[in-house]
Amino acid sequence: MRPTFSVTARAGAARLGQLTTAHGVIDTPAFMPVGTYGTVKALTPEELTGLGAQIVLGNTFHLMLRPGTAVIAAHGGLHRFMHWEHPILTDSGGFQVFSLKSLRRISEEGVRFRSPIDGAEVRFTPEDSMDVQLALRSDIAMALDDCTAHPATEAQARESMERSMRWAARSFAHYHRGEAPPGGLFGIVQGGMHLALRRASLESLLRLDWPGLAVGGLAVGESEEERLGVLDAVVPHMPADRPRYLMGVGRPEDIVAAVLRGIDLFDCVIPTRHARNGHLFTHTGVINIRNSIHRSDLAPIDSACDCYTCRNYTRAYLRHLDRCNEMLGSRLNTLHNLHFYLGLMRALRAALAAGALDGWAREFFAGRRADEA
Amino acid sequence: MRPTFSVTARAGAARLGQLTTAHGVIDTPAFMPVGTYGTVKALTPEELTGLGAQIVLGNTFHLMLRPGTAVIAAHGGLHRFMHWEHPILTDSGGFQVFSLKSLRRISEEGVRFRSPIDGAEVRFTPEDSMDVQLALRSDIAMALDDCTAHPATEAQARESMERSMRWAARSFAHYHRGEAPPGGLFGIVQGGMHLALRRASLESLLRLDWPGLAVGGLAVGESEEERLGVLDAVVPHMPADRPRYLMGVGRPEDIVAAVLRGIDLFDCVIPTRHARNGHLFTHTGVINIRNSIHRSDLAPIDSACDCYTCRNYTRAYLRHLDRCNEMLGSRLNTLHNLHFYLGLMRALRAALAAGALDGWAREFFAGRRADEA
Repeated sequence: MRPTFSVTARAGAARLGQLTTAHGVIDTPAFMPVGTYGTVKALTPEELTGLGAQIVLGNTFHLMLRPGTAVIAAHGGLHRFMHWEHPILTDSGGFQVFSLKSLRRISEEGVRFRSPIDGAEVRFTPEDSMDVQLALRSDIAMALDDCTAHPATEAQARESMERSMRWAARSFAHYHRGEAPPGGLFGIVQGGMHLALRRASLESLLRLDWPGLAVGGLAVGESEEERLGVLDAVVPHMPADRPRYLMGVGRPEDIVAAVLRGIDLFDCVIPTRHARNGHLFTHTGVINIRNSIHRSDLAPIDSACDCYTCRNYTRAYLRHLDRCNEMLGSRLNTLHNLHFYLGLMRALRAALAAGALDGWAREFFAGRRADEA
Repeated sequence: MRPTFSVTARAGAARLGQLTTAHGVIDTPAFMPVGTYGTVKALTPEELTGLGAQIVLGNTFHLMLRPGTAVIAAHGGLHRFMHWEHPILTDSGGFQVFSLKSLRRISEEGVRFRSPIDGAEVRFTPEDSMDVQLALRSDIAMALDDCTAHPATEAQARESMERSMRWAARSFAHYHRGEAPPGGLFGIVQGGMHLALRRASLESLLRLDWPGLAVGGLAVGESEEERLGVLDAVVPHMPADRPRYLMGVGRPEDIVAAVLRGIDLFDCVIPTRHARNGHLFTHTGVINIRNSIHRSDLAPIDSACDCYTCRNYTRAYLRHLDRCNEMLGSRLNTLHNLHFYLGLMRALRAALAAGALDGWAREFFAGRRADEA
């Protein structure tokens, strides 16, 4: 089913909304935990649901290589393969192919690359990306894009953006060529840090009827000022009745800043990756559990937090697990960090519902100090 | 509190019993999951309880080095450190010191060894082992023993066993020297594969009033015949009113064979370590999930199993997680293997309670085929 979106409250550019898919409703603004290989690292689907996750992200590129599309299709799709009954968004694979750098060759047709798993040459076109995402039965599929390198000249960014737009049209045509697809396809605005190109990209996309649009090509090394500049140039022109997804961003403060500018959907590896590296979020900033000051610390990560980890374990225990490379440490840290992110989204939604977003955001930014990590 | 034991049913040498400690009752025959560093690898205490574990094992040697006794003592003991409210048995550290081989020097006083963590020289006497176990507040502590190498001549085994007996007496005296200890101390029968030495070791231990006794120095490379020979020589002479613990054993068939000979308590790393290596127990034997025959297999590990893993995931998914080194794979495999072991103990206890152990055991041994792994 094609996802539908309704906005239920506004505060300036910010929106409270509901995104409805075949596998359930997502309250927005929403954060999507990243489940690269068909698992949000270290957690079960029941734990994710318990944390309040309503949608997870799967990586088309990685799943296509391992276990391969056919294995997942044999399970009836990614939901059953990974035992996740709720909505799934899959990226297109564009960003991962972009990250391969020397291993890939881009042409108008698509990309050819050497598999980092077994060295085999793989062809990956917009049509291939759609075929994989259709087989995974994603609720939200993404058009294949050509991620623009950063920094890029205007000419480089234009060439890349225009290719992305041609690939977006091919993605759209292929995704909708057969019977009703299982979900909906989102287009991706590109154009690097060049605001005119960003607006041209959006205009190009708007020739087709996407159920949602994303801003891609950010979180690639640009400054915060550049990123917010792109959002300020693009988001006001994105359709008000469609969900807006900021890909790969970011830190809690980045998410709040983007919500204030009208973004509805987020994904980022920060909470889960930070957790495995011992960087843990608190309401005043990030701590590094590996720091020796936590050696005998009987306090929880954050005394204001009511997650399972903070209710039951000390910093000393978590530091010990980290030092011993115990998997339980990654689990407990991941639970905590995702609780923090999903709690942040709940707080944003509550503030929006209460008409109190401005005050909430002021307090949020005032309460953060320099990170220990 | 000193643990107490009551036998509620018998079948030949086998016993159904209850071992009561300050932190709860353990139904025997019981299997104790191994929690080396204050965590049964990959699982939470709630998951262990859900699987039916009533007691876990902690490793004195490892915890003494990391995070150090003082850190755990600052938490009020190992239970609170690791958030496990139920009984804990700690080994003495003897077996780990024994495993250090070239890094250790044994004298009458105790052992001196180089820490494998930081290379510092560490002294470890029977009194040290007791001090650590008292600080951990174990429900069941173990006497420090000198593990006999295998194979050993009669003279070597005698010297080692006699040292173990002197260390056992020192352990007993030190453990009971002050106020009432938090738990009880078990003695350990040594003597290698030499049956007369085994009996002499037991006789020596029986001069003191241990609340339970263990058979140590097995699962060190001996044959099944040798191991069963030691049990047949020793167990019939162990006090009928005290729990009997077979240390470090073993495979499901080893556990059943030992229960039939009158053993009540078991610990072994096999279910948890096998899980992390992809070796999974089924009612007909062990499968290796890494085997390519499982690539697209939509069946659960064991269709007769009702564990969380088997209810929700396919072999294909578990193989995929293993190939991607995903932590969730180790979690799901560990849940399954421990469910298998703890279910085996439940089945043994049910057969004992129903007076049907003989028939159950015959069926158990008949149903097992050669392992795939």
